[in-house]
Amino acid sequence: MRIDFRPLRILVLGGDGYLGWPTALHFSAKGHDVAIVDNMAKRRWEEEVGAMPLFPIPSLRQRLAAWRECSGLRIRSSLGDIAGDFEFLKDVFQEFRPETIIHYAEQPSAPYSMIDHRRATFTQRNNVIGTLNVLYAMQEVVPHAHLVKLGTMGEYGTPNIDIEEGFIEIEHRGRKDTLPFPKQAGSWYHWSKVHDSGNISFACRIWKLRATDLNQGVVYGISTPETDMNERLVTSFHYDHVFGTALNRFVVQAATGHPITVYGGGNQKRGFLNIRDTIQCVELASMNPPAAGEFRVFNQFTEVFSVFELAKAVCDAARILGWDATIRRIENPRVEAEDHYYNPRNDHLLRLGLTPTALSDELVQSLLRRVSEAKEAINREAIMPTVQWRQTRSL
Amino acid sequence: MRIDFRPLRILVLGGDGYLGWPTALHFSAKGHDVAIVDNMAKRRWEEEVGAMPLFPIPSLRQRLAAWRECSGLRIRSSLGDIAGDFEFLKDVFQEFRPETIIHYAEQPSAPYSMIDHRRATFTQRNNVIGTLNVLYAMQEVVPHAHLVKLGTMGEYGTPNIDIEEGFIEIEHRGRKDTLPFPKQAGSWYHWSKVHDSGNISFACRIWKLRATDLNQGVVYGISTPETDMNERLVTSFHYDHVFGTALNRFVVQAATGHPITVYGGGNQKRGFLNIRDTIQCVELASMNPPAAGEFRVFNQFTEVFSVFELAKAVCDAARILGWDATIRRIENPRVEAEDHYYNPRNDHLLRLGLTPTALSDELVQSLLRRVSEAKEAINREAIMPTVQWRQTRSL
Repeated sequence: MRIDFRPLRILVLGGDGYLGWPTALHFSAKGHDVAIVDNMAKRRWEEEVGAMPLFPIPSLRQRLAAWRECSGLRIRSSLGDIAGDFEFLKDVFQEFRPETIIHYAEQPSAPYSMIDHRRATFTQRNNVIGTLNVLYAMQEVVPHAHLVKLGTMGEYGTPNIDIEEGFIEIEHRGRKDTLPFPKQAGSWYHWSKVHDSGNISFACRIWKLRATDLNQGVVYGISTPETDMNERLVTSFHYDHVFGTALNRFVVQAATGHPITVYGGGNQKRGFLNIRDTIQCVELASMNPPAAGEFRVFNQFTEVFSVFELAKAVCDAARILGWDATIRRIENPRVEAEDHYYNPRNDHLLRLGLTPTALSDELVQSLLRRVSEAKEAINREAIMPTVQWRQTRSL
Repeated sequence: MRIDFRPLRILVLGGDGYLGWPTALHFSAKGHDVAIVDNMAKRRWEEEVGAMPLFPIPSLRQRLAAWRECSGLRIRSSLGDIAGDFEFLKDVFQEFRPETIIHYAEQPSAPYSMIDHRRATFTQRNNVIGTLNVLYAMQEVVPHAHLVKLGTMGEYGTPNIDIEEGFIEIEHRGRKDTLPFPKQAGSWYHWSKVHDSGNISFACRIWKLRATDLNQGVVYGISTPETDMNERLVTSFHYDHVFGTALNRFVVQAATGHPITVYGGGNQKRGFLNIRDTIQCVELASMNPPAAGEFRVFNQFTEVFSVFELAKAVCDAARILGWDATIRRIENPRVEAEDHYYNPRNDHLLRLGLTPTALSDELVQSLLRRVSEAKEAINREAIMPTVQWRQTRSL
C-alpha cells in the first residue's frame, strides 16, 4: 500500500466500537489528528441482550489514556448522540473541523434489528436520522470534508447477476443508462444502510458533498498492530448470536467444544475480510477522496466463502490443534436464499492498492488459541440464535 | 371499470387529506365499511407554512357529519399518530380489523421536506417509521390484510431507459435476474417513499404480507362525484409552492392574472392524473389484492406532460375564457434534469380496467372557473417558491 502522506483531521464517529476503535488508533499512529465521537450505545445494547465482548473493554477514557501511554499520542473524544442531538454534532464539527469523517456510528446488528418492533424502528430511526444529521452538519459546517460511510454488502442481497460496485449499466429496450445497483437487503438493519446510501447520494447531488460508501463484507479477527501493543488497547470481540459475526462465532464454538453451528444448508455465500483489511480499505478511501459532488461506492471484502466453507476452515484448524471439533446444521432463523449465485466485484479498492490478507490456517489457529486462553469467560448461552426473522419475539 | 362487488372493511390512513378524504367517501358510497385514521398534522403544517387550502375545509367531525347527512352513511374515525403511537395503531387494527389498509398518512410535500434540517429529518422519520409501524401492526393483528400504499413516480427520477413498474429484468455479463427498478429520488420526501418501498417489500418477504405500492404521478383536480354532492364535502385544494401541485398552481395563477411560472426550462416531464383516477386506481388495486407474500408495484398515472405543456394547456384555456394569461420561466429552485428521456409504463392498472380521464380543455376551463369564483381567498404570496434545493433556508 503506497500512500502519499498528508496529515488530516479525521473524525471517527462510533470510535468506541469493534472497528471504530482500531481505526482511530491506526490513523493516530500514522500521524493524523484524530477525534472520536461515541454515545456508548453499543455498551448498553450488549447489557440489554447479554452479549459481552470476550475480552474486557476498558472505558473509552481508560482506552484513550492507555493509547497515550503506549504511543505518546492524543486522540480527542466527545460523548454524544449523533442521531438524537444535532446541535452536539454541529458543535463537534465546528470545533474539530474534520477533513475526513469516518462514520461507523450505527446500530450494527441484523439480528438486533429483527428482535421486535421496538428494535426495528429504533435501528432505522437511529441509523437513517444519524446519517441525515451528519449530512446536514457537513453541509452547514464542513462542506468540503469527505464522508467515509460504512455500508454493507448485505445491501445487495443475492441477485442472480454479478454485483457491481454501487452502480450498473443497464441496457433496456434499446436504451442505456448507468443506474444505482438494485438493492435487496435482508434485515431492517441492512435496509437502514440501503436508505443511508440513497440519502447520501442525494446530498452529494444537491450540495456537492463528497462521499465514499464502503459496502463491507463480514469482518473477522481482532488483531491490528495498534490493538496488539497493549491488552488495554484490545477491541471488542463478539461471539454471540446478536453481535458476533460468523467466523468469530465459529472460533468460540470450536474453542469451547461446542459444535460449530451453520444456519440452514450453509451454502449461503458472503464476502469476508480481516479486520486489518477493513482498516486498510478505510485508509485507502480516506487518502484518495472523491471529487466534490461525487458519491462513490466501493465493495469492501477480500474473499468469498460459503458459510459452510468457513465452518470447515475453523473445524479443520481446530483439529490440527488436536481439538475435537464438529459442524452442525441448525434451522435457519433468517429468511435468505441458501443456494444462490454470488459474484461481487471489488476492483475499486484493489486498484487503489489493497493487498488482501487471506484467511489462512495459521490465522484461524492463532485466533483459536487466543480465544481458548479466555474460554473461562465465554457465555455459551449467548451463542445459539433466538431471534427469528419470520416472527417477532422478545429476548 | 368492472369490479365484482364484495364489501370490505377499509381503513384509510390519512383520511382527512387531499386524496384520503375523497377516497374514504368513494368507498363508503360503494357500500364498504370505511374507517379513517388521521392526526390532523397536515392542518398544522398548513398553518406553519402559511398555505391554506383554497376552499375552507370543515373539521373532520363536521365533514363526517355532512357525509352522514348527505348519504346516510357512517364513516368511523380515530385520531392519532401512526408514526408516534404504535399502540394506538394496533388498537385501531384490533377494533376495526381492516381487510384493506389504504395508506396516505405521510408528509406529502417535496418542498416541505427541503425547507431545513428539522423538516427533512421529520419527513423521513415520520414517513419511514409510520410505515414500519403499519407493517408491524399488520403482522401482529391482521396479517392477511392488503396494504395499499401510496408511493410516487418521483422515486424513479428520470433514468435514460423506460421506467418499468417496480421491477426490471436485467441482463448482465451473460446472466439474468428480475430486480427492483433502480431509484433516484429528487427530495428527502421522495427518498422517504423509496425507503418505504424497500421496507414493505421486505415485510412481504419475511412475513408473507400482501402489499400494493402505487407509484403515483402528480395529481390535479378537486372534483369527485362524492365531494361534489355538497360544499361541506369538498377536499383540500392547495395552490401554494409547498403543497400545491403543478396544474393546480397554474390554474390559480391564471385565475388571478399572475403569470404562470414554470421552474427552469420547463421540459421536465412527469406523469399526471386526475384526482378521480387516483380513486379509480386505488379501488382497482383494492378490489384485486395480490397473493400472500406478494409485493406488487403499479405506476399510477394516465398521461405524461412536460411542465411547459401543462402551463400551456392552462394558458390556452384561460385565453379561451377571455382572460389575459402568460407563461414565465423562473429559476429552478430544485435540482433536477430539465431535458431528459421519460417513458414510464402503466400497463398494470390499464390491464385491471383503468379508464383514464384525459386532461381536456373543458376540464381545465371548469377548474379555472371554479377557482376564479373563490379568487378573493387566494393568498398570492404563497405561490412563488422560497424553498431552495441547493441550500437550507428558513421559511
